[in-house]
Amino acid sequence: MKDSIYMRRVLQLAKKGTGQVSPNPRVGALIERDGVVLSEGYHSRFGSPHAEVDALNRLNGKSAQGATLYVNLEPCTHFGKTPPCADSIIRTGLGHVVIGIQDPNPEVAGKGINKLRENGIHVTTGVLPELCTEINRAFIKYIQTGIPYVTLKVAQSLDGRIAAQSGKSKWITGEQSRRMVHRMRKEHDAVLVGVDTVIQDDPQLTSRTGKKTVSKRIILDSKLRIPEQARVLQTTDNEQTIIMTTAQADPQKADRLRQNGVTVWPVSPDESGRVDLKNALKELGKAQIASLFVEGGSKIFSAFIQQKLFDELIVFIAPIGFGSGLNAFDLPPISKPAEAFTFSSTLWKKVGHDMMFQGRV
Amino acid sequence: MKDSIYMRRVLQLAKKGTGQVSPNPRVGALIERDGVVLSEGYHSRFGSPHAEVDALNRLNGKSAQGATLYVNLEPCTHFGKTPPCADSIIRTGLGHVVIGIQDPNPEVAGKGINKLRENGIHVTTGVLPELCTEINRAFIKYIQTGIPYVTLKVAQSLDGRIAAQSGKSKWITGEQSRRMVHRMRKEHDAVLVGVDTVIQDDPQLTSRTGKKTVSKRIILDSKLRIPEQARVLQTTDNEQTIIMTTAQADPQKADRLRQNGVTVWPVSPDESGRVDLKNALKELGKAQIASLFVEGGSKIFSAFIQQKLFDELIVFIAPIGFGSGLNAFDLPPISKPAEAFTFSSTLWKKVGHDMMFQGRV
Repeated sequence: MKDSIYMRRVLQLAKKGTGQVSPNPRVGALIERDGVVLSEGYHSRFGSPHAEVDALNRLNGKSAQGATLYVNLEPCTHFGKTPPCADSIIRTGLGHVVIGIQDPNPEVAGKGINKLRENGIHVTTGVLPELCTEINRAFIKYIQTGIPYVTLKVAQSLDGRIAAQSGKSKWITGEQSRRMVHRMRKEHDAVLVGVDTVIQDDPQLTSRTGKKTVSKRIILDSKLRIPEQARVLQTTDNEQTIIMTTAQADPQKADRLRQNGVTVWPVSPDESGRVDLKNALKELGKAQIASLFVEGGSKIFSAFIQQKLFDELIVFIAPIGFGSGLNAFDLPPISKPAEAFTFSSTLWKKVGHDMMFQGRV
Repeated sequence: MKDSIYMRRVLQLAKKGTGQVSPNPRVGALIERDGVVLSEGYHSRFGSPHAEVDALNRLNGKSAQGATLYVNLEPCTHFGKTPPCADSIIRTGLGHVVIGIQDPNPEVAGKGINKLRENGIHVTTGVLPELCTEINRAFIKYIQTGIPYVTLKVAQSLDGRIAAQSGKSKWITGEQSRRMVHRMRKEHDAVLVGVDTVIQDDPQLTSRTGKKTVSKRIILDSKLRIPEQARVLQTTDNEQTIIMTTAQADPQKADRLRQNGVTVWPVSPDESGRVDLKNALKELGKAQIASLFVEGGSKIFSAFIQQKLFDELIVFIAPIGFGSGLNAFDLPPISKPAEAFTFSSTLWKKVGHDMMFQGRV
């Protein structure tokens, strides 16, 4: 009971790192003795101290002798951007460490725990494991596979249309849903769209909520059809706009784009000449993109679904009817409802007048 | 405050008549004096005493002298299946009548109230008027227009598909949604489908919840294509199955169906030779059908929407994706989202794993 109360607080702290720490996990930490919280900390951005060390630093000279440290993820034992947390913990004289879940990296899982125990520290593990897994689900997939966690985001009418027949889609959902989408963009390492969406909608693909943390912007464009005046190519940080293209691209256009600061990546095509999604995801993983927010259009959604390359589907449904228009997905026919694709967990949430569906594969 | 508490109870009582009293309204009544409820009543089925009289009858000889009667709808002053309620009220010596809303029939609205006042009874009106309107919204439309209140009910996947390309639609939504649909059928005077739905799904169109109150079953079938072995034609009350057809029907098949107890109505066709919806609704209104539950398919939904002949749309959305298949609606293209059809009020409600949307025109 006490453990889970403190662990909930640790998870609140961990969330403060949202959108700032990737490809690191979100981690919070809290030091307590005899029911008194001595300090709190969290991993605030990539390269900054880990949560445990942050909490230790914030003791401000107070002794942690015999105190308990709560942390949602197993402390590390390796040198990365910062020294190993396990060593720092051992030096302080902490008596007890309570851990949410083990390090999801199978190569290091348990090493931190063992090191602490070998040094006489009492260790408890498995406190609120579902919540601790949930908060770092993208990180966990990425660290285990090297492939980003992929979220597809659809905005549609009641009758499942993502645009009028004309291609127009502004605006289907309400202001609150659109604000939530901006928050979601910020929480992902990169936003991805197909070039048809750039041609049709000319989006900026920035996050306009609160502190402007711009994610990377990925455009799948096998033939480099992107209009050079597209808004996504006129940003103050064009190098964060990555066009993934194939050998079908006009090399001169690619050069012009590169001179304009845009990142242009040649990737291997699939059988039909389009950017091979699996390879594209591997490349994005190598570029430390642990989470990807896919915003359309229909061809892109369909490709991710058909190749089973997505982890989560989010659908914002507006309380309006189009009666006709473009469907979100265009997959090969199924013969009966039992063949529909389903989710292992689902959530419905009202957002303004709209309904949001979130399904995990 | 006191008035609204008793009026809420009156509305609870009124609901007991659900599915039993149409084309009469749902009405409840309560008699109270000095904070003591002396009796309660409601209109329990078409032809039985009105709510006010039921409450008076249930006084069991107790005097109602100086007491207050609460009733959600203005008492009637005309002879119908039963004598006028206003006269019964006047005879009892009740001192005060609290009324939710006036009679929605413009020809009689206010007459009951006036009669009570002329006989020295104190009358209060307009107590919880929204709720009192809501409970009888179908009755109100019907009494004012002669046309049934039309509810379209769609069951679809997340991506707006009501069937696989093959036509198969069993089952998209979960058991709880399907149970709720059975309850809804029972609450309407008639269920309506197009003949394509009968050919494809062979539904019984009965209500399978609780006490089996079978609504009328309406099939729109301009060419009388219905298979004679369809389950909807093999019921114990075939006369409740009404096929609305046109002069294109084979007269011999129509005769065979009639001999089998089925009701076959010729109605005028529209320009394209299909059953003219507006005329069909007028005919159903004449047959005392005050509320109609339309269950598809796509052509039928689209016709009701395009001709603006519906009052309410209910969409059950299952947390599954088809990727392809039949859309609920097939209307002429709109050029932008702002031209979508919208609702004056909307409600989202979780039903099992599904989401239910209810929109009022």
